[in-house]
Amino acid sequence: MQYLNEAQTAKLITHQLAYSAVKEAFIAATTDEATLFPVVNASGPQTDSMFSMKSASTATLVGWKTGSYWPGNQAKNIPCHGTNVFLLSPETGELVAVVAATQVNAYRTAAADAVAVDYLARKEATVLTVFGSGHQAEYEVLAIAAVRDITKVIVVGRDNDRCQAFIKRLVDKGLQADCTVASAQYGCENADIIVTATTATAPLFKASWVKEGTHISAMGADKVGKQELPVELYQGASLFCDYRAQSVVIGEFQHSENGQVTEMGHVITSHSAGRIDSAEITIFDSSGIAIQDLFVAAKLLQLSEELTERVFD
Amino acid sequence: MQYLNEAQTAKLITHQLAYSAVKEAFIAATTDEATLFPVVNASGPQTDSMFSMKSASTATLVGWKTGSYWPGNQAKNIPCHGTNVFLLSPETGELVAVVAATQVNAYRTAAADAVAVDYLARKEATVLTVFGSGHQAEYEVLAIAAVRDITKVIVVGRDNDRCQAFIKRLVDKGLQADCTVASAQYGCENADIIVTATTATAPLFKASWVKEGTHISAMGADKVGKQELPVELYQGASLFCDYRAQSVVIGEFQHSENGQVTEMGHVITSHSAGRIDSAEITIFDSSGIAIQDLFVAAKLLQLSEELTERVFD
Repeated sequence: MQYLNEAQTAKLITHQLAYSAVKEAFIAATTDEATLFPVVNASGPQTDSMFSMKSASTATLVGWKTGSYWPGNQAKNIPCHGTNVFLLSPETGELVAVVAATQVNAYRTAAADAVAVDYLARKEATVLTVFGSGHQAEYEVLAIAAVRDITKVIVVGRDNDRCQAFIKRLVDKGLQADCTVASAQYGCENADIIVTATTATAPLFKASWVKEGTHISAMGADKVGKQELPVELYQGASLFCDYRAQSVVIGEFQHSENGQVTEMGHVITSHSAGRIDSAEITIFDSSGIAIQDLFVAAKLLQLSEELTERVFD
Repeated sequence: MQYLNEAQTAKLITHQLAYSAVKEAFIAATTDEATLFPVVNASGPQTDSMFSMKSASTATLVGWKTGSYWPGNQAKNIPCHGTNVFLLSPETGELVAVVAATQVNAYRTAAADAVAVDYLARKEATVLTVFGSGHQAEYEVLAIAAVRDITKVIVVGRDNDRCQAFIKRLVDKGLQADCTVASAQYGCENADIIVTATTATAPLFKASWVKEGTHISAMGADKVGKQELPVELYQGASLFCDYRAQSVVIGEFQHSENGQVTEMGHVITSHSAGRIDSAEITIFDSSGIAIQDLFVAAKLLQLSEELTERVFD
């Protein structure tokens, strides 16, 4: 059994690795062999502590991810969230690897939106508006900046100080773009790409503010009742997601009456069209699937092995 | 993160360790803090391959067990079944241990029946009848022989050669008892203790064959549709189980109209009566709960630590 601890995976993970793993996962998710099993939502003995188990199987990877949230950790100065990925051998069912993936998880989620941007946003897109100024939003901006030549980032958030601190973090992490804080309306009217990374339960902006040709990646909705986008936007837009069966139940498209939602895997393999013209609005909903975690974990294990071999060469 | 591999746990596990862990688990299962979460039944890419995830939380232990069954392994000369137990810190949610538990699982399941025998069978019980001659049945007999002075074992099975081979394995493992193969009727009429370890879906014997004062531990039923005991036996017998909510749905007592089923934890802590007199028939249904796996894994980790400390002393 191989084990990669958090320090190791935090060192190995890059936006590029997450991008290529999630892209493969998008494709695997559209194959007949791909199965997602029911999610377990469990709890621990500490107040409000909880953990989830999300399992999946594909032709080449079998396993699950657990995500834990122990809010009492804040007082102990340790992270409240924790993620681990477990892989079984598809040939024998044996436990072959445990991969600590707390930081990896942020890269993986951002990568899903970045792959969608890469396949759906206009090539000449340069202005990115981000809704949210939290931990995940940071990874989203950096992942998207790795697939488009982003020259301007507009940050929309409820707290100006938090937004300024967020911009500082982006710059510290090497983002080469002009960053400003602005209103939702200004953000929408000036964006080529919009990414939403919030915990909202109601639309963050008006459909009429979004200009022609915009691409939107929405990552916040992962439960019944969550919502980031105005439903009026769906009319006339092209809708894409990671996994249709999940997106229309717990993802953003739970609010869509429009049945026409295309899975990204089909776009990547050219079985379905992506963006058709430069005036079209494209929307990608990332509901998050365990298959992505399995592919990222497998790539980390592969990279770790390659590096070890190199050391002993 | 601590990891105990299969070779390590196979060396550490004993019937005594499993007994004391399962006894603690029985008690924990009756507390308010104990929660069992929905079971996930998943599959792999190989034909008929499957894995399950059973998670639980108590005041002191949080985690889950995965069981895998890859029937194609037989052709590869590796075990088809695999078990691993995973523990999260109840204080922080962090993954603290992975414990390989394929062989351990047989001990743990046998221990549940042995604890029930210890608390419910007559002290002077000496004759044990076992229905089934498979891998698990072996562990059942040895675990029960560790809590009662068993002088005679009667084996009931469909295939005489398999039963003889089974007896040889018991003797090879050091069982000090007179062993014979006999009919179900003879087995029941002469038993002080009956243990059923089969995959049956219909009663293995007639209620009228069972003599006064017999204790029965039934472990086979763990799914809707499974059954080892005749329902006529329930009238006038006292019924016990590991976890009531599960026993009456997927355990033996799914076939019981009698709502009076006592959890073993209450008997162990003397909150409920066990056997009341020497003429009574007592029946224990072991449906199998993840809490048992967590407690056995925790005990193995503790023992492993103690042994390591001793080495460095």
